[in-house]
Amino acid sequence: MSGALVEIVMGSKNDMSVMQECADMLDELGVPYEIMVASAHRNPDRVHEWATSAADRGVKVIIAAAGKSAHLGGVTAAFTPLPVITVPIKTSDLGGLDSLLSMVQMPAGVPVACVAINGAKNAAILACQILGTSMPEHRERIVEFKAEMAAK
Amino acid sequence: MSGALVEIVMGSKNDMSVMQECADMLDELGVPYEIMVASAHRNPDRVHEWATSAADRGVKVIIAAAGKSAHLGGVTAAFTPLPVITVPIKTSDLGGLDSLLSMVQMPAGVPVACVAINGAKNAAILACQILGTSMPEHRERIVEFKAEMAAK
Amino acid sequence: MSGALVEIVMGSKNDMSVMQECADMLDELGVPYEIMVASAHRNPDRVHEWATSAADRGVKVIIAAAGKSAHLGGVTAAFTPLPVITVPIKTSDLGGLDSLLSMVQMPAGVPVACVAINGAKNAAILACQILGTSMPEHRERIVEFKAEMAAK
Amino acid sequence: MSGALVEIVMGSKNDMSVMQECADMLDELGVPYEIMVASAHRNPDRVHEWATSAADRGVKVIIAAAGKSAHLGGVTAAFTPLPVITVPIKTSDLGGLDSLLSMVQMPAGVPVACVAINGAKNAAILACQILGTSMPEHRERIVEFKAEMAAK
Amino acid sequence: MSGALVEIVMGSKNDMSVMQECADMLDELGVPYEIMVASAHRNPDRVHEWATSAADRGVKVIIAAAGKSAHLGGVTAAFTPLPVITVPIKTSDLGGLDSLLSMVQMPAGVPVACVAINGAKNAAILACQILGTSMPEHRERIVEFKAEMAAK
Amino acid sequence: MSGALVEIVMGSKNDMSVMQECADMLDELGVPYEIMVASAHRNPDRVHEWATSAADRGVKVIIAAAGKSAHLGGVTAAFTPLPVITVPIKTSDLGGLDSLLSMVQMPAGVPVACVAINGAKNAAILACQILGTSMPEHRERIVEFKAEMAAK
Amino acid sequence: MSGALVEIVMGSKNDMSVMQECADMLDELGVPYEIMVASAHRNPDRVHEWATSAADRGVKVIIAAAGKSAHLGGVTAAFTPLPVITVPIKTSDLGGLDSLLSMVQMPAGVPVACVAINGAKNAAILACQILGTSMPEHRERIVEFKAEMAAK
Amino acid sequence: MSGALVEIVMGSKNDMSVMQECADMLDELGVPYEIMVASAHRNPDRVHEWATSAADRGVKVIIAAAGKSAHLGGVTAAFTPLPVITVPIKTSDLGGLDSLLSMVQMPAGVPVACVAINGAKNAAILACQILGTSMPEHRERIVEFKAEMAAK
Repeated sequence: MSGALVEIVMGSKNDMSVMQECADMLDELGVPYEIMVASAHRNPDRVHEWATSAADRGVKVIIAAAGKSAHLGGVTAAFTPLPVITVPIKTSDLGGLDSLLSMVQMPAGVPVACVAINGAKNAAILACQILGTSMPEHRERIVEFKAEMAAK
Repeated sequence: MSGALVEIVMGSKNDMSVMQECADMLDELGVPYEIMVASAHRNPDRVHEWATSAADRGVKVIIAAAGKSAHLGGVTAAFTPLPVITVPIKTSDLGGLDSLLSMVQMPAGVPVACVAINGAKNAAILACQILGTSMPEHRERIVEFKAEMAAK
Repeated sequence: MSGALVEIVMGSKNDMSVMQECADMLDELGVPYEIMVASAHRNPDRVHEWATSAADRGVKVIIAAAGKSAHLGGVTAAFTPLPVITVPIKTSDLGGLDSLLSMVQMPAGVPVACVAINGAKNAAILACQILGTSMPEHRERIVEFKAEMAAK
Repeated sequence: MSGALVEIVMGSKNDMSVMQECADMLDELGVPYEIMVASAHRNPDRVHEWATSAADRGVKVIIAAAGKSAHLGGVTAAFTPLPVITVPIKTSDLGGLDSLLSMVQMPAGVPVACVAINGAKNAAILACQILGTSMPEHRERIVEFKAEMAAK
Repeated sequence: MSGALVEIVMGSKNDMSVMQECADMLDELGVPYEIMVASAHRNPDRVHEWATSAADRGVKVIIAAAGKSAHLGGVTAAFTPLPVITVPIKTSDLGGLDSLLSMVQMPAGVPVACVAINGAKNAAILACQILGTSMPEHRERIVEFKAEMAAK
Repeated sequence: MSGALVEIVMGSKNDMSVMQECADMLDELGVPYEIMVASAHRNPDRVHEWATSAADRGVKVIIAAAGKSAHLGGVTAAFTPLPVITVPIKTSDLGGLDSLLSMVQMPAGVPVACVAINGAKNAAILACQILGTSMPEHRERIVEFKAEMAAK
Repeated sequence: MSGALVEIVMGSKNDMSVMQECADMLDELGVPYEIMVASAHRNPDRVHEWATSAADRGVKVIIAAAGKSAHLGGVTAAFTPLPVITVPIKTSDLGGLDSLLSMVQMPAGVPVACVAINGAKNAAILACQILGTSMPEHRERIVEFKAEMAAK
Repeated sequence: MSGALVEIVMGSKNDMSVMQECADMLDELGVPYEIMVASAHRNPDRVHEWATSAADRGVKVIIAAAGKSAHLGGVTAAFTPLPVITVPIKTSDLGGLDSLLSMVQMPAGVPVACVAINGAKNAAILACQILGTSMPEHRERIVEFKAEMAAK
């Protein structure tokens, strides 16, 4: 076990340009995380195996980022009891409306927690809030962070 | 303290027709909850006070449902360090696209966890998954629930 | 091997009200088929196993129907070298725009062949056209069918 | 009291690039105004306090500009009896459709007066028209302005 | 002069089914008003004449309701220095998105104050808020009305 | 009378960058035309007067181009028995969907003939086709033009 | 030659429920017409032959109505020098946005004159306006019709 | 007969910038193909003749790419019993939503197999999958290609 509480998965290496902000925010909030690149469509077995074992690795929250027909979050959520936060990636043709609807409109039974198009930073904060429901240091960090924002 | 781990807030009594499914699912999952009706626009002070004190009441997760210019989730998230799940309510003119975009496109700093339009049942499951990150009985209930679904 | 050349999979039993038209059209065109209900989100292992083995069962074409965040077609396509036709199911809130974009906007590398929202009948005809690329009786049946339509 | 008849509030300093046009137009129309930056989500208490006291400061009209899940106008309107004009800010992914629907689709009971996406100049003119309902110099200035436009 | 402070104009008699709520709300708020039916397209001269003379009749605020290519508000605003509130009427095909965009996206120079699709009630409240900028009885009525809503 | 068979009106000088293509195409097709800049909102009286007298000047077809809440075509059509072709101008935020819906969704009784967003060239060809219904030289020019296109 | 000046073509017999209004309006305006049902997709040869010969039959204007991927207007326009008016038919899933975009967004070189979704009545009036560019009795009928509308 | 198994047709030479990726992918997959430029609107007779004879030339699959009111795929499908894959080309105003809906929403009876906006590469893979239903070397190439993707 790596000690990561959050695992970030993204469908393509290109998504890292958006998701760096997520990693940076987790750093700022003091949340240990790991990053993996795997496509629900091109590496389905790898996603399957990784998602199925995430809870056993001690991970508490998954963040999945993908664009277009963005199935990565839903596919991940199908294989794990952990909460899955999804980040719809902006697309060059439809602006990310395709990614957003592919992620947020999950059918009953298998939810994901969707944030805004390219909402990488908010995904990190939400992950920290979820950890904060049981770990006081993360709760406190969120309270501090909100105070910092208000003070700016 | 009422012992509720989840609090559901909705913008209008009419939203109960959708959100009953959320309450029913929380019952089925064994998650204690309370329900409140308060509009971010018509009862702003009440929402303010309630959201600010939620964490101190022992609540772990908030579920906010609203329609049209659906500000309730964002307003709640502004006042609490707790994770806030939002349910965009279907509208008779734009089908809920207005509620969805009003909820999911939160600016950086204050996330909400958005589920599908009228995704009341999924909001309940997601809340239980969040509780399950620290409380084994809720984690197990989710695992069971997923097995029941797969078996159907 | 059942002798089915086409397998229809749908995410929910409710989709049968739309997909009956697909089955009826395959009957009319003389194409042997089988039907399965399995959700990419609720029965991911079943979908995985079924899709992986489809080619070995002698199936030539898969038709996948689903609504909302409609991942079933993409997930199926990830596990099979067969062509996958997708039918986006109309939704009560966004009219099926969500299902359509979730299906048609597949990222590079894993295509699906998307037909219209609720285009169940056309999925059947397209499957027959694909079979017709190598099996003369199916080609002839399409030619006949087009003549019948023109004559009406 | 500063003597400002109009107060402009915007969710982020970045919105000033759009809202400068509003300030310039108010200058051109001879309407005294003040500008404040405060986010409904990041500085909720500041927005609350400011909106609640606006009428007592002698302000007659509020102009609120925000982007994405643009709650600033609705939140302001909840706390004041003054008319609130809202300017939905263009977004880089959905072109401002998210900001527009978040602002214009206010539920019954708490209206805002929405202008076009990035309609900063029109917000100024509308504010002047509202002042002109009781103050002849502002009415006359609008009449003049319309004549100037027609003459160009 | 009839003493009406608000004039409601609608493009078609059919719009009255929506706009009755506006009239009722103005009654409840104690605002004297008159109603006229005239289409910007079918009765352009009548709209022209009526809009041009509204200010001289003592009217303070105009409310214009129309559907589809909803030009009535913009056409009215072109001929008067008064603030014009617009109500986009829901349409049976596009849900009112056409009416909304036709009304809210006014080009620079001639603003309207747009409320939600079918937001007839809010148009009335906004008109009263505008009157309240100079007439204390209307300001007080709004304060009361907000208190009544919060108390419900 | 200038001898112009077609008059082009546009809401703003900026629209000329799009509409130059319309003028060039009319030149290429040998159709005499004139161009005017007048906004339905900023110069309503000028538009009124011009549209009302167009038929008497010997004009056969009007082409109106405008963006955003694009009322120019509808307003023109209200004042003339001539066919009015409308060109919705692309907008920087919504891509011209606003201009398109504002123009094409005209209510029953007062039609316009809408072409594509920025469809300036097609507006010219359509005008020539309309002239060709009675003037053989224009009919022949269209036949030739279609042959030239097919030959390319 | 039948003496019809206008020919109405529609993609399906079902479209007659919408297009009856077009026929009725042509009757009211005294314009002789004929109606044909032929799909661009199911009867392409028939459409080809009919469109190619329309001008020779003495027809002056074509009205084409179709829904979904509504190619009938564009296909017709490809084969005739006559002006083609298109009526996008409302669809049960996307409200007719699909039909509208399929018709109105014609590429440069081959225009159609698009009216509103289900704008059958306006198609008739526009056809009469086009005839009126050379035939005084039709021009006069339009002038009368506009006066009747204004008088109502 | 040229030996091409796939024929690519596109509405305009400009579409080649997108469709080069399709040709490259067919090369990579070892599928023989030919390319033709012909517009459904500007060269209807050429499209007609070409589509009607494609099957007789030994072609197995057609790929049609077009933008805006993208009728090329549907028109082709009307004249051939072969499966027709369509690539909606991105547009500068609506991002390709117009092309997508024009292609994917085909009415019952005449299907096309639609891929993503600008999904040129996927069109090639899908064509190879269709060939693979009867030709083992193409099936094997797809299996290899999927393994290569997963390995990256």
